[in-house]
Amino acid sequence: MINIGVLGYGYWGPNLVRNFSRLTNARITWVCDIDQKLLADVPRLYPTIQTTAVFDDLLKDPDTHAVVIATPVSTHFPLGHLALKAGKHLFIEKPMTMTVKDARFLTKLARKKRRILMVDHTFVHTPAVEKIKEILRSKTLGTLQYIDCVRTNLGLLQKDTNVIYDLAPHDFGVLHYLLGRNPTSISATGASPHNTGQEEVAHISAQYGKNLFVHSHVSWLSPIKIRTMIFVGTEKMLLYDDMESSEKIKIYDKSVSVTKNPKLLRQLRIGYRTGEMVSPHIPVAEGLAGATLAFVKAIETKKAPASDGRAGTDVVGVIEAATKSLRQKGKSIRV
Amino acid sequence: MINIGVLGYGYWGPNLVRNFSRLTNARITWVCDIDQKLLADVPRLYPTIQTTAVFDDLLKDPDTHAVVIATPVSTHFPLGHLALKAGKHLFIEKPMTMTVKDARFLTKLARKKRRILMVDHTFVHTPAVEKIKEILRSKTLGTLQYIDCVRTNLGLLQKDTNVIYDLAPHDFGVLHYLLGRNPTSISATGASPHNTGQEEVAHISAQYGKNLFVHSHVSWLSPIKIRTMIFVGTEKMLLYDDMESSEKIKIYDKSVSVTKNPKLLRQLRIGYRTGEMVSPHIPVAEGLAGATLAFVKAIETKKAPASDGRAGTDVVGVIEAATKSLRQKGKSIRV
Amino acid sequence: MINIGVLGYGYWGPNLVRNFSRLTNARITWVCDIDQKLLADVPRLYPTIQTTAVFDDLLKDPDTHAVVIATPVSTHFPLGHLALKAGKHLFIEKPMTMTVKDARFLTKLARKKRRILMVDHTFVHTPAVEKIKEILRSKTLGTLQYIDCVRTNLGLLQKDTNVIYDLAPHDFGVLHYLLGRNPTSISATGASPHNTGQEEVAHISAQYGKNLFVHSHVSWLSPIKIRTMIFVGTEKMLLYDDMESSEKIKIYDKSVSVTKNPKLLRQLRIGYRTGEMVSPHIPVAEGLAGATLAFVKAIETKKAPASDGRAGTDVVGVIEAATKSLRQKGKSIRV
Amino acid sequence: MINIGVLGYGYWGPNLVRNFSRLTNARITWVCDIDQKLLADVPRLYPTIQTTAVFDDLLKDPDTHAVVIATPVSTHFPLGHLALKAGKHLFIEKPMTMTVKDARFLTKLARKKRRILMVDHTFVHTPAVEKIKEILRSKTLGTLQYIDCVRTNLGLLQKDTNVIYDLAPHDFGVLHYLLGRNPTSISATGASPHNTGQEEVAHISAQYGKNLFVHSHVSWLSPIKIRTMIFVGTEKMLLYDDMESSEKIKIYDKSVSVTKNPKLLRQLRIGYRTGEMVSPHIPVAEGLAGATLAFVKAIETKKAPASDGRAGTDVVGVIEAATKSLRQKGKSIRV
Repeated sequence: MINIGVLGYGYWGPNLVRNFSRLTNARITWVCDIDQKLLADVPRLYPTIQTTAVFDDLLKDPDTHAVVIATPVSTHFPLGHLALKAGKHLFIEKPMTMTVKDARFLTKLARKKRRILMVDHTFVHTPAVEKIKEILRSKTLGTLQYIDCVRTNLGLLQKDTNVIYDLAPHDFGVLHYLLGRNPTSISATGASPHNTGQEEVAHISAQYGKNLFVHSHVSWLSPIKIRTMIFVGTEKMLLYDDMESSEKIKIYDKSVSVTKNPKLLRQLRIGYRTGEMVSPHIPVAEGLAGATLAFVKAIETKKAPASDGRAGTDVVGVIEAATKSLRQKGKSIRV
Repeated sequence: MINIGVLGYGYWGPNLVRNFSRLTNARITWVCDIDQKLLADVPRLYPTIQTTAVFDDLLKDPDTHAVVIATPVSTHFPLGHLALKAGKHLFIEKPMTMTVKDARFLTKLARKKRRILMVDHTFVHTPAVEKIKEILRSKTLGTLQYIDCVRTNLGLLQKDTNVIYDLAPHDFGVLHYLLGRNPTSISATGASPHNTGQEEVAHISAQYGKNLFVHSHVSWLSPIKIRTMIFVGTEKMLLYDDMESSEKIKIYDKSVSVTKNPKLLRQLRIGYRTGEMVSPHIPVAEGLAGATLAFVKAIETKKAPASDGRAGTDVVGVIEAATKSLRQKGKSIRV
Repeated sequence: MINIGVLGYGYWGPNLVRNFSRLTNARITWVCDIDQKLLADVPRLYPTIQTTAVFDDLLKDPDTHAVVIATPVSTHFPLGHLALKAGKHLFIEKPMTMTVKDARFLTKLARKKRRILMVDHTFVHTPAVEKIKEILRSKTLGTLQYIDCVRTNLGLLQKDTNVIYDLAPHDFGVLHYLLGRNPTSISATGASPHNTGQEEVAHISAQYGKNLFVHSHVSWLSPIKIRTMIFVGTEKMLLYDDMESSEKIKIYDKSVSVTKNPKLLRQLRIGYRTGEMVSPHIPVAEGLAGATLAFVKAIETKKAPASDGRAGTDVVGVIEAATKSLRQKGKSIRV
Repeated sequence: MINIGVLGYGYWGPNLVRNFSRLTNARITWVCDIDQKLLADVPRLYPTIQTTAVFDDLLKDPDTHAVVIATPVSTHFPLGHLALKAGKHLFIEKPMTMTVKDARFLTKLARKKRRILMVDHTFVHTPAVEKIKEILRSKTLGTLQYIDCVRTNLGLLQKDTNVIYDLAPHDFGVLHYLLGRNPTSISATGASPHNTGQEEVAHISAQYGKNLFVHSHVSWLSPIKIRTMIFVGTEKMLLYDDMESSEKIKIYDKSVSVTKNPKLLRQLRIGYRTGEMVSPHIPVAEGLAGATLAFVKAIETKKAPASDGRAGTDVVGVIEAATKSLRQKGKSIRV
């Protein structure tokens, strides 16, 4: 039985507590938040969980093996640091930290302390992304050439972070897991129309070596919620639409051909699909269920989870570079 | 009765002939294409139209008042030049020319010759765009802050032009009509995974002065066809989805608010819409019907149409700058 | 604080326990199921809830004020009977019972015992249905003429009940709440292609007096899940699509007109919408949250909830008549 | 070259003329309508076509081999009768006639005169329906058990015919082609809320022997246009959605299983799809293109087309029975 203390009970914390509570080999011992009002419901919903406003209560509890940090991004580093120093395993919300430097520090510290460090790249732990990984591995799509990601919704503007820090870790966390590597250079543009000092919309172009181009559009300024990733290969194309309830993945039997045949051109302009489409069955699962299970399993097996410190660090590298490029009008930045 | 000769009967030409034929105050006199096989159907479908492989037949015909050019982009300038020199009114496919220099030359020539020069920015002449113009004018959305355009489909790769020249004129033609001005600077990224020497996907960021940011995503590498423009204002947001048959325009009663209220934050994350949505009635019409009518009307009234030489020139300026930026890894280019 | 015992912890029971647990003025005291394996998770998830396989433990507990019955339909009557006899308030799953006779008996018994009897017509307690009620009351749609309900999905075939008993109570529960009355006659057809002895698909036509015609299509044989109700009035039409996450209700500014004008006919055939569409904002809420809250509130205020014994009895009347008609090849049955 | 005269130039006539004009082996000689105003555009659009208000001009023209009738349903019989008597091949709009008796008369007359008689069951001649025919023949779906058809839109009310005559021939024309037989009994309900004396919405249940149940929902009272047919087989299910532009057919790898396993039950309730879905490629084509081509080919080859007099007669039998049942409150009628 892994005993876990959760720090931060605002928006995401309750989801974490609910999912960890469902596991048979884990137990929430503490929920901590400096805003005591947020903790009011905990005793009724979870009578065995202790609540506190003092993080130290978790750190000093020898029966608490792991700490979950679900606080604002800017506090991830100092709080994660304390948790690791106290010898706790660490589950930390995305993005891992504000800077690569801080992320590297935590990663090293965890290794030194022989503790599990996992970043909550939630989607990495879903059946849909697992299925995409399997499809890519099988070379069904041929060689990947282009990936187009859109992650937009109506968001409340946040003063302590920009939309890149908020949404891009989802895309680049998944890409890191699928591709096993980071982009080589980044160019980003965007805007902050409400003058909050934080970008509310961004378009991030990422080059992975010479042959793979990726774009991620993240926005808080959209009236509709979109969550799509399109993978274009030499043989087929794959559409991953996370808002679809039963057809999350569609594989189009389509490779683009170079032709000047006007008849074929006409057909394509009108019909634009030339082969069959297959939508594989994906089991239904809450993303966080997979992530919380992976963390506990990593502690038990002493094996690094898919979204470990290195993955977290790499993703911070991308969003740090994207923010930098954006503030230089799209200048290409090496990662 | 305006008599019109059409040059180019490949993909788009038949649509132009069909639409001009429906007008009561216009008549197609000639259809010309160097590929005579393409003309085989014309006598059967349109017994009164003459066919030829020789452009000069149109130019020398004193009864032909106007020429429509629907040939590859690289030929627009020389052929348009001939038509204007011959004293014909000119309807030219988008993009008007390959370069701003050429576009300016044609615009001046048309003015000198007192002939109508119209570029086929088809969507400018649709009821949907007219409705958006009316909504923007009424200040229903407040002040425009951000416009996000997506125009993707599976396209046959073309060796003589890139995806920017093929698709971006639609977006920037509409934007020019709606905003009455051109961007001040452009940054673009993209890729040509099939090594055709022509970009197959591009992401174009355009700054309109300090306060309006626009992005246009154009791609031939998408398994699904998307045609959307999202207008974000200080008061409301408007979604224009041209693939929708009956709800092309949706206006969301939503202004983004700057808040740290966690309860509201939670509500928005889950529900993400906070006001009502209205979809105005848009009459059904083929885009080209409006464009062909506008051309004939411009000739009759001697008044410049909405998509005149200046509009065409400005749009060429954008796509020229975008292509230039793209080949410099996203460097910001002044328009 | 209302103390509640839950009987039945199969598919729906866990949702009931979860929702009642969230209320601040209620507490689950017992969860009971004859299949003890189903109860295994309860102590871990809800340490203060007692579990048992013996219904009598709940009935005899003086501190348990109310009983929730989430068992197979055929057991609703005998178990509900026991609960009311023991003096408990009763929350019973839909459909209330197998027969009108049984439903009437329970309703009378509850009245005699001065206990709250509520049937779980879940959707009655959602913001969307509340909004529709408000719209109908305001006469925005004019006079209601026709209502078309579709409720289909891929269902596991059940041997103890047909699809009418499973799905139609949702439609007719909502209709009873909105219209305040029951149909006057019913005609139904359907089929049981898998020879389970239970209909797997049914089409129910219901006449409400002379001027309102309703159809409900319920099916376990659909590859896609549909949950729609269309309300056709003399002035406008309303579409309620429960599968839509953010635009559950759409009001179409459209009254059908009787015309022979061929031009208008043509326009309608092509465009088929002649006025604007408005989608009001609906707060996001889990249906069961409203239902559980309504039950506790009814006990506290001693006022009958919206889906009380009479509503439950009326709905059983409809599904009983529909099943009868179906087995007589669609013969019209008076309700 | 088959010479064709078209009678009726209201809503559908222009589409017929346009499609027949595109064929290389047919020619429109006459367009006739008693409303001369409707013919005003013809000379401009089709300079070689003669116009007239007198049907006899077509019948007496020895160079006109075939007649197309696109007039109101009630005139189909007398006008078709005249055409066949005059020795013309006959292409007649759906439904073929008002009564089975009239349909049989025309069918016999055509046989006697050795002329082609074809009814315009347009969808029978589309690539999508051809693909479904091929899939059914291959037994991919197993044995057909249930077919659910929905064909609704906002319709202008017509005083001379009900919605069954207007829309149901599409469904039952396709079903006749796919199944090769007619239903054995029919039960229908519906309503005419606007008191036009003609039903505006109808629900038609059709039994094909013991083992196949079909339902067709036709309506002029829907704010949204729906065109779906769901084919449920013992092995798989097929969804045909004619409003989809690129995924008209989806095959779901799903057979319903009879189980009481609560875990599987839960999974299905949430996820409701258990296998993969495949959408085959369907070439894009206008339905009427196939129908007009089939007529000309039938004349040339002297072979009956797919939608011949017998098919037309059978479909009239269904809609006649449905209307009869509807006026007897859903009484089952033998076809």
